[in-house]
Amino acid sequence: MAGKQINDGVTFVLLGATGDLTKKKLLPAIYHLVAKGKARHFAIIGASRKKTSMDSIINSAKKYVKNGKKEVWDNIAKRAVYTSLDFYKKEDYVQLKKVVKETELRWKLPGKMIVYLATLPAHFEVITKHLEAYHMCKHKKEWPRVVYEKPFGHDLKSAKKINKTIRKIFEEKHIYRIDHYLGKEFVENISLVRFTNRILEPLWNKDHIEQVQIYINEDIGIDGRGGYYDKYGVVRDMVQNHLLQLAALIAMEPPKDLSGDAIRDRKVDAFKRMRIHDLLLGQYQGYLKEKNVAKGSITPTFAALHLRISNKRWKGVPFLLMSGKKLPKREAGIHIKFKRVACLLPMCPEDTNSLSIRIQPNEGITFQINGKVPGKSFVTPIKLDFCQSCVFGPNTPEAYETLLHYVMQGDQAAFVRQDGIEAAWKVVDRALARSKTVYKYKQGSTGPTELKMWNTKHKIRWKT
Amino acid sequence: MAGKQINDGVTFVLLGATGDLTKKKLLPAIYHLVAKGKARHFAIIGASRKKTSMDSIINSAKKYVKNGKKEVWDNIAKRAVYTSLDFYKKEDYVQLKKVVKETELRWKLPGKMIVYLATLPAHFEVITKHLEAYHMCKHKKEWPRVVYEKPFGHDLKSAKKINKTIRKIFEEKHIYRIDHYLGKEFVENISLVRFTNRILEPLWNKDHIEQVQIYINEDIGIDGRGGYYDKYGVVRDMVQNHLLQLAALIAMEPPKDLSGDAIRDRKVDAFKRMRIHDLLLGQYQGYLKEKNVAKGSITPTFAALHLRISNKRWKGVPFLLMSGKKLPKREAGIHIKFKRVACLLPMCPEDTNSLSIRIQPNEGITFQINGKVPGKSFVTPIKLDFCQSCVFGPNTPEAYETLLHYVMQGDQAAFVRQDGIEAAWKVVDRALARSKTVYKYKQGSTGPTELKMWNTKHKIRWKT
Repeated sequence: MAGKQINDGVTFVLLGATGDLTKKKLLPAIYHLVAKGKARHFAIIGASRKKTSMDSIINSAKKYVKNGKKEVWDNIAKRAVYTSLDFYKKEDYVQLKKVVKETELRWKLPGKMIVYLATLPAHFEVITKHLEAYHMCKHKKEWPRVVYEKPFGHDLKSAKKINKTIRKIFEEKHIYRIDHYLGKEFVENISLVRFTNRILEPLWNKDHIEQVQIYINEDIGIDGRGGYYDKYGVVRDMVQNHLLQLAALIAMEPPKDLSGDAIRDRKVDAFKRMRIHDLLLGQYQGYLKEKNVAKGSITPTFAALHLRISNKRWKGVPFLLMSGKKLPKREAGIHIKFKRVACLLPMCPEDTNSLSIRIQPNEGITFQINGKVPGKSFVTPIKLDFCQSCVFGPNTPEAYETLLHYVMQGDQAAFVRQDGIEAAWKVVDRALARSKTVYKYKQGSTGPTELKMWNTKHKIRWKT
Repeated sequence: MAGKQINDGVTFVLLGATGDLTKKKLLPAIYHLVAKGKARHFAIIGASRKKTSMDSIINSAKKYVKNGKKEVWDNIAKRAVYTSLDFYKKEDYVQLKKVVKETELRWKLPGKMIVYLATLPAHFEVITKHLEAYHMCKHKKEWPRVVYEKPFGHDLKSAKKINKTIRKIFEEKHIYRIDHYLGKEFVENISLVRFTNRILEPLWNKDHIEQVQIYINEDIGIDGRGGYYDKYGVVRDMVQNHLLQLAALIAMEPPKDLSGDAIRDRKVDAFKRMRIHDLLLGQYQGYLKEKNVAKGSITPTFAALHLRISNKRWKGVPFLLMSGKKLPKREAGIHIKFKRVACLLPMCPEDTNSLSIRIQPNEGITFQINGKVPGKSFVTPIKLDFCQSCVFGPNTPEAYETLLHYVMQGDQAAFVRQDGIEAAWKVVDRALARSKTVYKYKQGSTGPTELKMWNTKHKIRWKT
C-alpha cells in the first residue's frame, strides 16, 4: 500500500470521455488531486466518439464537486484537450497520438501516460490493440499505466479472452483493473484494521466467528442503464466483484506484507477456496418496464448467497452475502457475528458479540459486547463505536480519487490481478450454471418474501 | 450476583449513626432504596455515643441527595429512632435491644436485622460480642446480617484477630465485609464484561496482554481524617482493599458461575498468587501540617506498585497499581495494554491496542485500536467508546445503595470473605515489612519525581 509520489508529471488519457463515469467520477477525482496538490504537472486528453469539447465536458462535471474552486477548474480546463475517437478507426488513433504528443510538449510532460478505458468491456480488446498498433504507448519501465474499468468481462470465458489479448501487449505491472469498492476508505480499512491490531488476530477464525455477513444494498433501480444491466444482473454486476472482493479481504490469510502482490496472492488463495453453496435470486416488480430491458427478462436485481470457504480457518463458517436494488436503503457493510460465550449467568445474553464495519454511509466500526445494566445484575448489548466523520471530519476522499492516485504512484494493491479476476468469475459462473428461480419482490421491500425462509434456513438475522 | 427480594421488611441498625458515613452514604443509600421501592417495609434504629435525634441526623443527610423528595424523607424520618450507645456499656445494649423490639412491633417487622458497624475496626470485636451477649440478634437462618465497614483491621494479625472473634459468634453467611469499590457500577461490570463476552476470553492472558494498569487517584488530601489516616497510609487504606480487589477481578480464573462463593473462591486464588515486586511510596508536601498527624510521620499518601501474579495465565505480565492523594485529578480506572502486533506495514503503529475501563468519573469502556487515516495508507489509534451515562443516563446507583440492597437480598458476591481479606493483608504486609523510602511530592503534581525513573524501569506510560 505504499508508493512513490511522482513529481515530474502525468498525462491522463480518458477514453470514453463523454460518458457518465468521466463526468461524475474521473474529472471530480482529478479535481481533488489537483486541489490537494497531488497532481501538479499534468494534462488531460479526453477522447470519445462524439464531437464536443473538454470545456463542455468539464462544465458538466462541475456539479459533482461540492464547493469547487474556480481557479482549480480553470487550471484543469487549460490543460485539457478533446479529440474525437471512434474506437474502431485507425486514423482516429493516429490523431489521438498527435494530440497527446503536442499536449505533452506544450506542458513539458515526460510522457508518463495513464490511459483510462472508461468503456464497456466489449471495447477493451480493440482499444488495447490499437493503442499498441499505433505506438500510442511507448513502454518505459512500468509506463504507460492502463486502467480498465469494471466490469471486466461478463463471465470467466470473456474475462480470459480479454486478459489474453491485453497481456500480449502489456505486462501485469502496466495493468490496473478497477473495482472501485477497493478504493473506498472503509474497504481499505479492512486490511489495515485486520493486520495492525493485536486484539483481532486471535479471534479471526472458525473457533470464535459464527458467521460473516456482507451486504451492499441500494435504494435506486437500474438508473436508465437497462441496456447494460439486463445482460449482467446483480451477480455479475455486484457479486463477482464488490461482494467477493470484500469476502476475500475478510477471509484471506495474513500476507507477508501489505504490498500489492502479497495482498493479491492471499486474496486469490481465498477466491480459489470459495464455493457458492446456496443462492436466492430476485427481481424487483417493474423491472420489466425499465428502458432497454428484454421482454420477459429473468435478470436478477437481488441476490442472497451462502458462501463457503473451504480452508482451516473458515471451515463451517457461513459467509452470507446480499446485494439488491430498490431496497429500503442504500447501505453497505460487513457484520461479523462471534459465537456465544459459555454462559455463567442465570439469565444469559441473547445477542452475541459482533464487529460491524460500515462502508457507507456513516463509515465506521462498531463492536457490540455485553455490558451491565446499571443497578441490575444482568447484561445488555452495548455498542463501542468509532465514527469516521465524527473524528476525522467529512472529507474522506472518494474511491476514484484514491484509485487514480494509486495509479499515479504505481501502487497496484487495490486493483484486481488477472488471476484474481478469473478466480472470482469461476466462483460466480459455477453458481449461475445451476438453473435458478428468480423471485419477484416489491420495490422498497427487503427482498423476495422467500428470503424469510432462506434466512431461517441459514440462521441469519441480517444486520442491516 | 442474584438474590431474592425481601418483601416482609427489614430493620436497619446503624451503629456509628452520628458519623460521616451514615450522613453522607448510608442514609442517602436508604433514601434511594425507599424512593425506588426496593425498601418498603423497614425501620431504622440509629445508635451512637452522642445525645442527638434521628431527625437531626436525617436533616444533615438531606444535602447528600440531589432533588430529594420531601415525602420520602418524611417516611424515613417517621420510621427512624435514635438511641444513644456507648459501645462499651452493657446497659446501652439492653436499651438498644428494647428500642429495636418496640420499633419492630410498631411497624410489624419480622425481626430481620441488618446491623451496620459504621465504626473503626477497633470497635468491631467489642460490639459483636455485646450484640451476642445481650441476645440482640436472634439467629434465624442467615439473619441477622452484620455489615463491617472497611478497613477490616490494619494488618494480617489484627484482621485475623477480628475474624476469630466474630466467627465465633456468626457464621460467614451472616457477615458482610464492605469494600465499597465492589459496589461501584463499573467494578461490578468487570466480571460481567469479562465473562459474558466471547471476544474477550481468547485475549485474556499473557500471550496477548502486555501489562495491566490500575489506578485510583484523588485530588483531595486526607480531608481532616489525620487521626485515622496517619495510622494507615495509602497502602492499608487503598491498596490492600480497593486496588487488590480490582487486580483480583481482572486476574481471577473464570468461576463456575457468578454466585458469591464461586467468585470469591477464584478471587482468593488470585490473591494467593500475588506478590508486590516493587513499591514506590510518596507523601505530599504539607501532609505533616495536617491535623492529628504525628510529628515527622512517614505515612505514605502515594504508592505505585509492580504486582506479579504467579500463575499460568499471567506469568511475566506486570500489574501496575497506583493510588495517591493531592494528585491533579480524581480518577479511577483500569487500563489493559495488549502486546504489539507482528507488523506488516512500512510504518508501524507506535501505540498498542488497549482496553480501558473507567470506574470514575465518566464511567465507560474504551477499546483503542489502529485504524486507517483517511486518504493515507497508514494507521493511527482510534477509540471505540462506550459511555455509560450517554446511553443509560446519569442515574447510576451509588456503591452503598447497591451494597445495602445486596445485603437485603443476602447476596454476598460483592463482599469480602474471611480468606479474601486475610490473603490480601498478607500481600500488603509482606511489602510493607521491607523498609521503604517515602519520597516527598508537590501537591497537584503526578507524584514524586522519582516516579519518572520508576515508570521507565517498568516500561509504563500511565493511562491517566
